[in-house]
Amino acid sequence: MAENFADRLLAAIEAKGSPVCVGLDPVLDRLPPGFPEQVKRTWPRLQEDLEELASVAAVQAFCDEVIKAVADVVPAVKPQIACFERYGYAGVAAFTEVVRAAQRRGLIVIADVKRGDIGSTAAQYAAAHLAGENAPDAITVSGYFGADGLMPFVDAAREAGKGIFVLVRTSNPSAAEIQDFADASGRKFYEHIAEWVARVGAGEGLVGDSGYSCVGAVVGATFPAEARRLRQIMPRQIFLLPGYGAQGATAADCAAAFKADGTGAIVNASRSVIYAFGKPEYADMSWPEAIAAAAKAFAKDVRQAIAAGR
Amino acid sequence: MAENFADRLLAAIEAKGSPVCVGLDPVLDRLPPGFPEQVKRTWPRLQEDLEELASVAAVQAFCDEVIKAVADVVPAVKPQIACFERYGYAGVAAFTEVVRAAQRRGLIVIADVKRGDIGSTAAQYAAAHLAGENAPDAITVSGYFGADGLMPFVDAAREAGKGIFVLVRTSNPSAAEIQDFADASGRKFYEHIAEWVARVGAGEGLVGDSGYSCVGAVVGATFPAEARRLRQIMPRQIFLLPGYGAQGATAADCAAAFKADGTGAIVNASRSVIYAFGKPEYADMSWPEAIAAAAKAFAKDVRQAIAAGR
Repeated sequence: MAENFADRLLAAIEAKGSPVCVGLDPVLDRLPPGFPEQVKRTWPRLQEDLEELASVAAVQAFCDEVIKAVADVVPAVKPQIACFERYGYAGVAAFTEVVRAAQRRGLIVIADVKRGDIGSTAAQYAAAHLAGENAPDAITVSGYFGADGLMPFVDAAREAGKGIFVLVRTSNPSAAEIQDFADASGRKFYEHIAEWVARVGAGEGLVGDSGYSCVGAVVGATFPAEARRLRQIMPRQIFLLPGYGAQGATAADCAAAFKADGTGAIVNASRSVIYAFGKPEYADMSWPEAIAAAAKAFAKDVRQAIAAGR
Repeated sequence: MAENFADRLLAAIEAKGSPVCVGLDPVLDRLPPGFPEQVKRTWPRLQEDLEELASVAAVQAFCDEVIKAVADVVPAVKPQIACFERYGYAGVAAFTEVVRAAQRRGLIVIADVKRGDIGSTAAQYAAAHLAGENAPDAITVSGYFGADGLMPFVDAAREAGKGIFVLVRTSNPSAAEIQDFADASGRKFYEHIAEWVARVGAGEGLVGDSGYSCVGAVVGATFPAEARRLRQIMPRQIFLLPGYGAQGATAADCAAAFKADGTGAIVNASRSVIYAFGKPEYADMSWPEAIAAAAKAFAKDVRQAIAAGR
């Protein structure tokens, strides 16, 4: 059997010294000034109908630079497929190249795809994103369909040594409006999902030597009280924590999701790192240097907050 | 402003005489015997690394035949993107071609993508699937993120005259395990989502002349009692009803989701129609004839059940 994803992720975290992840969410009009034009100039005879392909090329080239800038600092990157999918098939091709580029540099790749459907369709999504030589190391998935929708992902992950992170508590402001729906005892819907993820994730062949499961959970860092409670409900799940930085969560907020031994979660920052070149404190650096510096500051910030929280 | 999607869909239903939809869920090993090989023969110098592209070509060619076979019978088709995405970027290119092929034949295309994320990412997905000349007429989306995750889809739909169907009650056996989570008054989670969809879908510029909103709902036909209750909660939503046929729902089950005037829903059948050539009753027909005959039988079955239910 392939090596357990949880074990691999924990080893990568240990090797890099910080449980952090950089999100690759490239949006064309936020790329470094002049960069898209620079990439476009490498397309010598650019015709009008190639404009979109040039945008894709810029997005991909930008991610390649981000990957180079952060590869020695963080254990993982999280490419956001929506940012690629918007360019159609060419964007999807670029997404695969970005996944491979990150893996070639030794990074764990958590593809943020948030797929989910009934069982027969989930099997197709699992074939798309967890099987084959171009597959990322893990993906995010929806839990809304229940067991028969989730199991194709779980089975594919077990078989291929991959991981999945099930959406439990999202990081956005409106999350509470939907996910805080409570039963008579005050138990919330996202806790209901969490209990189920804990059960599913304890299944045979899913828990690694580290004691963690390859079935993890997405838990918004923007809700530390909820994360603390979820840490109790899901002892074997690695939490993927979005929300640091641009969405407002601090490293101290993130610390709530870790166990006393400092393991159990990985913090993602996307926009605050990959667009760091716009910040005054990095004004005297090239844009790849600014991204590298922001990644280092991010990793250090999280490391210190976890240490302070013990 | 572009024409309202709900009005367009209702007009298409009226023109074809049945509120039915054929799902395009092509899976290679279920295509007609010999058909993939036949398509592959049209690739004259097929090398091994083109094997996957030949599979994509077979899937696309199959969908083209299905579209031709059902275009005069049903108002809409529902291509399942997972079945294409599993072939990577080439599959996504084929998906776009299938969407266009169906639109060229005058069909409403409901792309079953089930996308959803936080607002900034949802905006990227909306750009991917609701904007531009290759966009389908409507997509399915997740409601799990709440308002800020949904609004980019709603806004894109309003602007472009497109539709969205928010996942409320899914059609699979495990749906109840997650979605029946109930509050102190016995109100279920999927009803909580439904009430919210009804509110959002009544927003300015969303309701068409027909009285229906371009914000619809996915409601599994496999749960008629739930569908009846949801019909009350969401008076302005068109229901997309998966689950007929292969998943076990009958036309009588589907009738529960319609209003007394026979409007308000569209029934989807995928496998029971597109793989109908395997059934004994169609044994004496070519496979496109079998698909056409199954689509006609499906449309008639639903039409009669709605009439009987009035």
